[in-house]
Amino acid sequence: MSDLPSEWTHEPRKILRFSPGDKVADIDPNSTPGYTGDKDGSEEVQAERNERFADLQEMLYANGRAGDHRSLLLVLQGMDTAGKGSIVKHVVGAGNPMGIRYTAFGVPTEEERAHHYLWRIRKALPVAGQIGVFDRSHYEDVLVVRVHDLVPPEVWASRYVEINAFEKELVDSGTTIVKCAMFVSLDEQKDRLAARLKRPDKYWKYNPSDLDEREKWPAYQEAYQAVLDRTSTDHAPWFVVPCDKKWYTRLAVNELLIEALKSMELEWPPADFDVEAEQKRLKKA
Amino acid sequence: MSDLPSEWTHEPRKILRFSPGDKVADIDPNSTPGYTGDKDGSEEVQAERNERFADLQEMLYANGRAGDHRSLLLVLQGMDTAGKGSIVKHVVGAGNPMGIRYTAFGVPTEEERAHHYLWRIRKALPVAGQIGVFDRSHYEDVLVVRVHDLVPPEVWASRYVEINAFEKELVDSGTTIVKCAMFVSLDEQKDRLAARLKRPDKYWKYNPSDLDEREKWPAYQEAYQAVLDRTSTDHAPWFVVPCDKKWYTRLAVNELLIEALKSMELEWPPADFDVEAEQKRLKKA
Repeated sequence: MSDLPSEWTHEPRKILRFSPGDKVADIDPNSTPGYTGDKDGSEEVQAERNERFADLQEMLYANGRAGDHRSLLLVLQGMDTAGKGSIVKHVVGAGNPMGIRYTAFGVPTEEERAHHYLWRIRKALPVAGQIGVFDRSHYEDVLVVRVHDLVPPEVWASRYVEINAFEKELVDSGTTIVKCAMFVSLDEQKDRLAARLKRPDKYWKYNPSDLDEREKWPAYQEAYQAVLDRTSTDHAPWFVVPCDKKWYTRLAVNELLIEALKSMELEWPPADFDVEAEQKRLKKA
Repeated sequence: MSDLPSEWTHEPRKILRFSPGDKVADIDPNSTPGYTGDKDGSEEVQAERNERFADLQEMLYANGRAGDHRSLLLVLQGMDTAGKGSIVKHVVGAGNPMGIRYTAFGVPTEEERAHHYLWRIRKALPVAGQIGVFDRSHYEDVLVVRVHDLVPPEVWASRYVEINAFEKELVDSGTTIVKCAMFVSLDEQKDRLAARLKRPDKYWKYNPSDLDEREKWPAYQEAYQAVLDRTSTDHAPWFVVPCDKKWYTRLAVNELLIEALKSMELEWPPADFDVEAEQKRLKKA
């Protein structure tokens, strides 16, 4: 039985799931697939779903402590200003820091470049009971790397298969993967970058290279199309998240997380001690 | 100018600070030093101070991103059920996961035991802009280790000086350290352990060894006295936090964090690019 808020006419995990044949060019970043509510009512829904997420996250963490090896990995990919940071703050942030492991993948360091591109990724994987959050990820190695010709085409071209195998390995070892491809429109990106340039408390979020990347938009669209076509697998499908409406983005990713956690069919871990005996011991202690 | 809520008659960083001569035996875990409010009004105060903390934390993180090397380390030490987890969830949890690094220090692994006791601690230190949270810490090596005779007395006895030097090194390299010694009463601990044994959703927080530790209470009190006497330094003082009233514990640690962040005199980092030039570039992009 679903506890999905009534504003959702379709389950996000179904309606946002990338299907073979879907075209990046057809994505409307300003749309709100499956959701009939609007911004006004969204805060209340969000607050309630934040709590639901936090409860499930605590249960995952509790199970991890009790020996369950499962974990969850949220992969956030998207162009600058798509709202990755907003998801971390307003969705993941509702959880308990005890069980959250956040990693941002920027330009690789010298040490990272000396290793296989999955080296730094493996080091950041969530352990039992954790939710790992990747702010950008191994997909940079078939996105920015492809767009900027950082390695020869035959090298990045071989990575799709490698990534699928890598993710299969993770899933087989108990990690549920939620991959969100976040799409913002060119116009909305312009507005958001302009906002960062207007407010001194937002300067730190701005990088002149953002504009260089912006100029390569078509190449990125192409690279994203390839990523979705080639790495949206049954074991780790991609979800396409429209991002021009921040409130929708948050609601959608929140539901994707809740649905992933629910699919684990978590229960509170049973006591690994004799409860009555301990109660008696405690009385005398 | 202080923005401390009016319920506080004394600044927590002053009234809770351990002073030479203070006796652990005199601590009243049920007291609320410096605070005149009660539980009823505490939620509202807490909510407002959660936001204040979150704002300051974001500014610390922004500065870290902009090249400022400073960080903050929160050390939580206390007997089982003192409320370390509650601080992580309800105080630190108000922050952005992007800038929080939580580490719990349990029984050392085989690899950790093969290294110096500060090895695992150094690996978990916050980097620039981060708030590191230690759920237990290097102080375990002069607490549980001392109480259980895990190493000879001359070994643990030499650690106080070593810890002071280690923390001095951290402070000198830009880490502000907030050390909270959390004191719960024997009676309140009994109630909290009983609660964990009553609710299946709390079993995972219970460990039969908690009762063994409880029996060594006097030895722990002695070990805590030595920790406070010998490691409450000017560069990294201890704060003694009464913990029988959870709402007070949260308010107090929240203020200690806010005060530590305020003492850093953070500002939003200036743009490291030409704002006007970027605005012009963006218009054409």
